[in-house]
Amino acid sequence: MPSGLDIFAGNLHRSGMSEEERLDLLTLQLMPGIGPVRLTLLLERFGSPSAILRAASSTLGSVEGIGPRLVQVLRDPSYREVARREYQRASDLGVRVVARGEAGYPPLLADIPDAPALLFVRGDWLPKDAQAVALVGTRHPNAYGRRIASLLASELARRGYVVVSGMARGIDGIAHTAALEAGGRTLAVLAGGFDHLYPPEHRPLAQRIVDQGALLTESVPSQQPLKGLFPARNRIISGLARAVVIVQAAEGSGALITAMHAAEQGRPVLAVPGPLDDEQHSGCHRLVREGATLCRGVDDILEEIGGLFPREPTGLSGQPLPTPQPSLATGLSGQSTSQPTPQPPTPQAALSSPATALPTPVTRPMPKLSNEEQRIEQALHSAVLSMDELVRATGLAVPRLATLLMGLQMRRLVRQLPGNRYEWSG
Amino acid sequence: MPSGLDIFAGNLHRSGMSEEERLDLLTLQLMPGIGPVRLTLLLERFGSPSAILRAASSTLGSVEGIGPRLVQVLRDPSYREVARREYQRASDLGVRVVARGEAGYPPLLADIPDAPALLFVRGDWLPKDAQAVALVGTRHPNAYGRRIASLLASELARRGYVVVSGMARGIDGIAHTAALEAGGRTLAVLAGGFDHLYPPEHRPLAQRIVDQGALLTESVPSQQPLKGLFPARNRIISGLARAVVIVQAAEGSGALITAMHAAEQGRPVLAVPGPLDDEQHSGCHRLVREGATLCRGVDDILEEIGGLFPREPTGLSGQPLPTPQPSLATGLSGQSTSQPTPQPPTPQAALSSPATALPTPVTRPMPKLSNEEQRIEQALHSAVLSMDELVRATGLAVPRLATLLMGLQMRRLVRQLPGNRYEWSG
Repeated sequence: MPSGLDIFAGNLHRSGMSEEERLDLLTLQLMPGIGPVRLTLLLERFGSPSAILRAASSTLGSVEGIGPRLVQVLRDPSYREVARREYQRASDLGVRVVARGEAGYPPLLADIPDAPALLFVRGDWLPKDAQAVALVGTRHPNAYGRRIASLLASELARRGYVVVSGMARGIDGIAHTAALEAGGRTLAVLAGGFDHLYPPEHRPLAQRIVDQGALLTESVPSQQPLKGLFPARNRIISGLARAVVIVQAAEGSGALITAMHAAEQGRPVLAVPGPLDDEQHSGCHRLVREGATLCRGVDDILEEIGGLFPREPTGLSGQPLPTPQPSLATGLSGQSTSQPTPQPPTPQAALSSPATALPTPVTRPMPKLSNEEQRIEQALHSAVLSMDELVRATGLAVPRLATLLMGLQMRRLVRQLPGNRYEWSG
Repeated sequence: MPSGLDIFAGNLHRSGMSEEERLDLLTLQLMPGIGPVRLTLLLERFGSPSAILRAASSTLGSVEGIGPRLVQVLRDPSYREVARREYQRASDLGVRVVARGEAGYPPLLADIPDAPALLFVRGDWLPKDAQAVALVGTRHPNAYGRRIASLLASELARRGYVVVSGMARGIDGIAHTAALEAGGRTLAVLAGGFDHLYPPEHRPLAQRIVDQGALLTESVPSQQPLKGLFPARNRIISGLARAVVIVQAAEGSGALITAMHAAEQGRPVLAVPGPLDDEQHSGCHRLVREGATLCRGVDDILEEIGGLFPREPTGLSGQPLPTPQPSLATGLSGQSTSQPTPQPPTPQAALSSPATALPTPVTRPMPKLSNEEQRIEQALHSAVLSMDELVRATGLAVPRLATLLMGLQMRRLVRQLPGNRYEWSG
């Protein structure tokens, strides 16, 4: 069922939006206690921002979740004045105000349940910016974190992907900078308003981002970048991206909030590993244990978003087709990165590969498949199956199936495809 | 259905084994082409080693998988002479010959399908050595790999666990040494025989292992440590252990063979992460992506084998009950390791923890559970459920369920227990 905001946005799309309507929406967005969720409820009830602002107190008070305090706020005319002033300030700064559903409002972001009704934007969001990956992490990275943030961002940029981050000190700033220097585009989501670019030393970076991407925020221009705004800002970072990569994060890092939002939004979460005796990686390692994908390089990111083996042979949005690349580690060890990925070896080759220089031990016959493994082989013989299809086809319980599939993958008999599907490759 | 070897082993257990019977078994184990799998087939058919050796060629040839060449081998009396010589040599070296099913043959190892029929043992395998963890890895570790091998082994030893490894250069040797220096016991599985301890520089280590554990091999004393024996040896390392930890391994490392065996044997596989731009970790990282558990420290290992939150309050085999410990990283950062692990925070605390110093943003109401999440909450409300029970209870497909569970775990609303079971902790 489409929400009130969807219906309203749908109308927008057909008719465009007047400045007055945008002001009405901004008035509502300014009101404390009226977040995206309550605004959706109100739009469902009243149909448009102006109708909400014109509604009688008694009618407003009958909406679920709208108590007497919020009624008072909704009836307070001073917010309209603030909205007008902020709107003018945005205009003076060259900042566009874009409503959800209008052209220039990122559709991926519009998909999240608590998408901002309005965004303030400097620079341009282009349709090709939908091919976006968020890179986030600690404000205090070590040399390894800095190096990896830079490598991932520049490689993503070179392969035509947009890098999204939060323009914070540390990993965020490094990711934006590396994407720009590789000639790519980048999107930065601010917590505060355009009058208070934060941190101040990133002002030159902000200007470069405006030229090769966009700065975006849901805050009005005069909003100070209060710390409390950052966790909510993070939902916009993940909302703009097809996948979120946590580059380096200790427990408690704000980047983990971004990971949480991404998981809520159904976006893939990847985390970069590091030495386990360095607290800087504890957040990333916990994420991997809780189901995030371990990220070894850009290929692993693109595999999650279907960019490595795209199903449509023409590529997405006119992007150049990314070709499979060796992992970051391989790329760094001096091999050419333009070689095709080697084909997975046959089971025999995989079993004997560490022993290519060694005689096969006569006392160890080729291990046969167990009865349960044979059931998996039969199920996968003519079709690629998802985990739950495998459950039905084999009658095996999920934990047992997971163990068996892991063993078969290690023996290169089964290959996992994007989307948790499995194919027999023996 | 019990195999021939099981029935034979069962008889052993009741009656003990004569030296002649052990010699018959050794004769068979020496024959090229007669591995544990074919030996089992033959024992199923003939009932005892001596009956196999006395069988007529025509009878032997009628057994599945026994062709004319193997019949010739089985009828060749010279193997019996070799067996007698090797048996005497073992006796001279103080090496015991232990048959599967006899006391002193590790029951965990007896459980694997291709368990050796006979083991050569110096030192003692004690019943408490069933609480064993294998630590394996590259022969050429870097400083990080050396440090982690040492930390994990000494911590396991201090907590009463036996460290199993392969006495190779690098990670293996470091793991044995650290376990011994922490006052623990350790088991080393050799590829060759006791006349050829390999590598030679580990002879002093081997002597210490005999005093505080055991050296084990399926090879006769005169067997050279041929490279081809190492992959098969690795199945014994994993077969002796409740869990296998790959400490550091590039692609192609023999340690990955041990991981493969462990997966086949249904033993948990853990892998230690490291910097992704160092090839030394590529094997471990691939394992994690294929389903191995990321290992942050000893707690993560014990969680896999039920040693961290044991179900039996008296502990296993009279072990002192391991108490929950902070992760290795925490332990290394100077905190006392005797503190109890902090309780998981409430969902509210988890959501607000990075913002404890920050005001909660008024515009972000506490996110509600989605309809699907509510189905999970209901299912877990009165019971701890496995993944497949959750599939049945919620009607959700596995990939969707996995995504939702990950989001709920990140929000600390769901906790994953050992054995892939989930509990609601909201």
